[in-house]
Amino acid sequence: MLLDSIATPASPSGEPAGTEQEQLVIATYLIETAFSLEAAAEVIAGEQSCGTFVDVPGETAELKARHGAKVMDIQPLETVDHPSLEGATVPRSAKGKARFQRGTVRIAFPLRNFGPSIPNLLTTVAGNLFEVQQLSGVRLIDLDLPAPFAERYAGPAFGIEGTRRLAGVHGRPLIGTIIKPSVGLTVDQARPLVRELAMAGLDFAKDDELNGNAPYAPLKDRVRGVMDEINRAADKTGKKMMYAFNITGDIDEMRRGHDLVRDSGGTCVMVAINSVGFAGLSYLRQHAELPIHGHRAMYGALARCSMLGIGFTAYQKICRLAGVDHLHVGGLDSKFYQSNAEVRQSILDCLEPLFSGYRVMPAISSAQWAGSAIETYAQTKTIDVLHLAGGGIIAHPGGVAGGVRSMQQGWEAAMAGKGLLEYAASRQELRSAIQKFAPRQSTK
Amino acid sequence: MLLDSIATPASPSGEPAGTEQEQLVIATYLIETAFSLEAAAEVIAGEQSCGTFVDVPGETAELKARHGAKVMDIQPLETVDHPSLEGATVPRSAKGKARFQRGTVRIAFPLRNFGPSIPNLLTTVAGNLFEVQQLSGVRLIDLDLPAPFAERYAGPAFGIEGTRRLAGVHGRPLIGTIIKPSVGLTVDQARPLVRELAMAGLDFAKDDELNGNAPYAPLKDRVRGVMDEINRAADKTGKKMMYAFNITGDIDEMRRGHDLVRDSGGTCVMVAINSVGFAGLSYLRQHAELPIHGHRAMYGALARCSMLGIGFTAYQKICRLAGVDHLHVGGLDSKFYQSNAEVRQSILDCLEPLFSGYRVMPAISSAQWAGSAIETYAQTKTIDVLHLAGGGIIAHPGGVAGGVRSMQQGWEAAMAGKGLLEYAASRQELRSAIQKFAPRQSTK
Repeated sequence: MLLDSIATPASPSGEPAGTEQEQLVIATYLIETAFSLEAAAEVIAGEQSCGTFVDVPGETAELKARHGAKVMDIQPLETVDHPSLEGATVPRSAKGKARFQRGTVRIAFPLRNFGPSIPNLLTTVAGNLFEVQQLSGVRLIDLDLPAPFAERYAGPAFGIEGTRRLAGVHGRPLIGTIIKPSVGLTVDQARPLVRELAMAGLDFAKDDELNGNAPYAPLKDRVRGVMDEINRAADKTGKKMMYAFNITGDIDEMRRGHDLVRDSGGTCVMVAINSVGFAGLSYLRQHAELPIHGHRAMYGALARCSMLGIGFTAYQKICRLAGVDHLHVGGLDSKFYQSNAEVRQSILDCLEPLFSGYRVMPAISSAQWAGSAIETYAQTKTIDVLHLAGGGIIAHPGGVAGGVRSMQQGWEAAMAGKGLLEYAASRQELRSAIQKFAPRQSTK
Repeated sequence: MLLDSIATPASPSGEPAGTEQEQLVIATYLIETAFSLEAAAEVIAGEQSCGTFVDVPGETAELKARHGAKVMDIQPLETVDHPSLEGATVPRSAKGKARFQRGTVRIAFPLRNFGPSIPNLLTTVAGNLFEVQQLSGVRLIDLDLPAPFAERYAGPAFGIEGTRRLAGVHGRPLIGTIIKPSVGLTVDQARPLVRELAMAGLDFAKDDELNGNAPYAPLKDRVRGVMDEINRAADKTGKKMMYAFNITGDIDEMRRGHDLVRDSGGTCVMVAINSVGFAGLSYLRQHAELPIHGHRAMYGALARCSMLGIGFTAYQKICRLAGVDHLHVGGLDSKFYQSNAEVRQSILDCLEPLFSGYRVMPAISSAQWAGSAIETYAQTKTIDVLHLAGGGIIAHPGGVAGGVRSMQQGWEAAMAGKGLLEYAASRQELRSAIQKFAPRQSTK
């Protein structure tokens, strides 16, 4: 959903926040209500700006005009017989025979109410409104932010171009893996695997999101052991594999983790965004000298109920603003709930320029293997992705070198416009991958 | 739901994490699935520990035994005809006639997999599992955490007793308000209101969650102006009103905000927990010398779909561990979606001792007024609450002094076991409150 020009007024970009010029945050919601869409939208606008459940002294016309959120646009969608969420009220007149109208509404919040602050933006556009009784569905689906946000938050420091430069990969996707088993490998057990991956010419590897700073493989030991393997392989092959160390943790711990990776010659850090929070993420970005690989674990809790929460188009904008360079988007035919259409849209969202034009590298993951390349490329027509296959590389019948080669062959086929079977005919690694990983018919 | 003794093994509490002794985090989930509850629970256990979509080399029996999550208990509930969430798969045999079984499952995660880290705990017990295809409903409803968490995170520094001490209120609830209008009052406009509230003998006031560090009323000016009014009133009345300044913001900004409030003689700071994230909250707690008033804005996005997200019993434990002293719980007959039974349970959850026995003060809010006291006390039988009425005090027909008095009278009636109308007969402020605020019949 494209938002019109009101969201980005043609103001000099250096203008400080809080001047008299009206600068707006425009939030787009998918809502459902037994009341009129107009009335429901006004409840959100009131609840999230000056209003409360009764009029109060001091809530003057001037104050409302200056600080009230305004409903900009309403687009009706279908009606349904049953409320999507619990605890919704219905008009007394409709009791027992209420229908629930869906629609999208755009609401403009004056930036002066909260200033260009990600945490306070969240409280405003994604705060108490999810609890409003008059709504039986409410989901933030898009956000349009004015220039002062870009002045306060720098966005990704590396993005796609910076990642390509550090990884030395151009003209094709980055191919990567996740160290598996996700949990339980000691550093000494992980070293041979890292060695094989790096020697096989893999572009990127990462810790699993579950593998933070665990007692059995503390980050400091992992960084030492993994970087030792990567550097030794680089000495032989001339290619230094990028490795995203999972530094998810408390604020100071995360910063120390970043510095440790940097000082050890590492080229990427990873955080579970929702586990550290957006304030934690932007704090890391402020100090980061390495690309930040953003994992979205827990995002399903915010997104899987389609009439509640925060849609990915809005979510990824906040992630980018807060500073991630790579962002997980799921994967086609994955082990997770999303449809392929949603995954496709998520990839495209990440590639849509924001503010100064920055993009973020979509990290495609979950049940991916060599054959996933064909459909991923067909659906998105982009090579600006980081394609992660965990089991799809590590469990390959030809070993991890075979797994890496099969992924490369999958992308060669995709980019050459060849069919998977056709391309596999003369390529053993791809054939083995098909035999082992080609999915059974989907039952979703 | 009480968890059995396996969650808190009788180990010396000083024992460091990561020793050979098995320490477990036990997570309880409400799930729904078209498969067997056993199979679905195993998918969560696998996904959130060692497993991936295929077996991988290195996933040895020893590794699984040491690091695999284990399903402890399964309690079947009802079955339903339609999946609660989208994107769920069904067994091929059941295609077209699947039923969806609900149940609660308890899963034990070895602490050694992630150590006593709140962010890494979240990734494990509330990470990718919300996305699992085999589930058509999944909600984290309780958590039982072993002692090392209490060793690493101190929990609330003040809690109920510390708050009572600072506010000088004993033997009854704290009565409070939210400065309204929520948004738009300049510091000069807010000052007379703060003055009246403090002079009326109110225990507690707070910024609205929407009112962070906005350009029109920057925190530093607000702290100066508000504390000036509070201190001047205290000089006259002998009672210093506690004021929760909303310091929600970026990490460094939040810490500076805390120090500013402390240095200005303030006695409380407030954050929107989900806007700063749990890592941000525990960072603040680490440095905090004042009680932390925790607002749960955005919690509805995690909780309102009853078959998804994170239930309050689990949520409030993490909030407490991370260090809040007060936690919002909604209110009876509020403007929000929750039922009174849920609000009641939330209040009781906050009062359940955790670790060394600490509790957190439930902050009751949303469409509250003097009459809310009676039912709140009847339902919970506790006076250890912070009862917040925004409009219910500020829009009182007798002015804010009348509003404050009416709330005091409401609690006097509640604690004396009097009926509202009976007690109001001889009390003008309570009568005015009834006339203005008594709710119309609920249509929920």
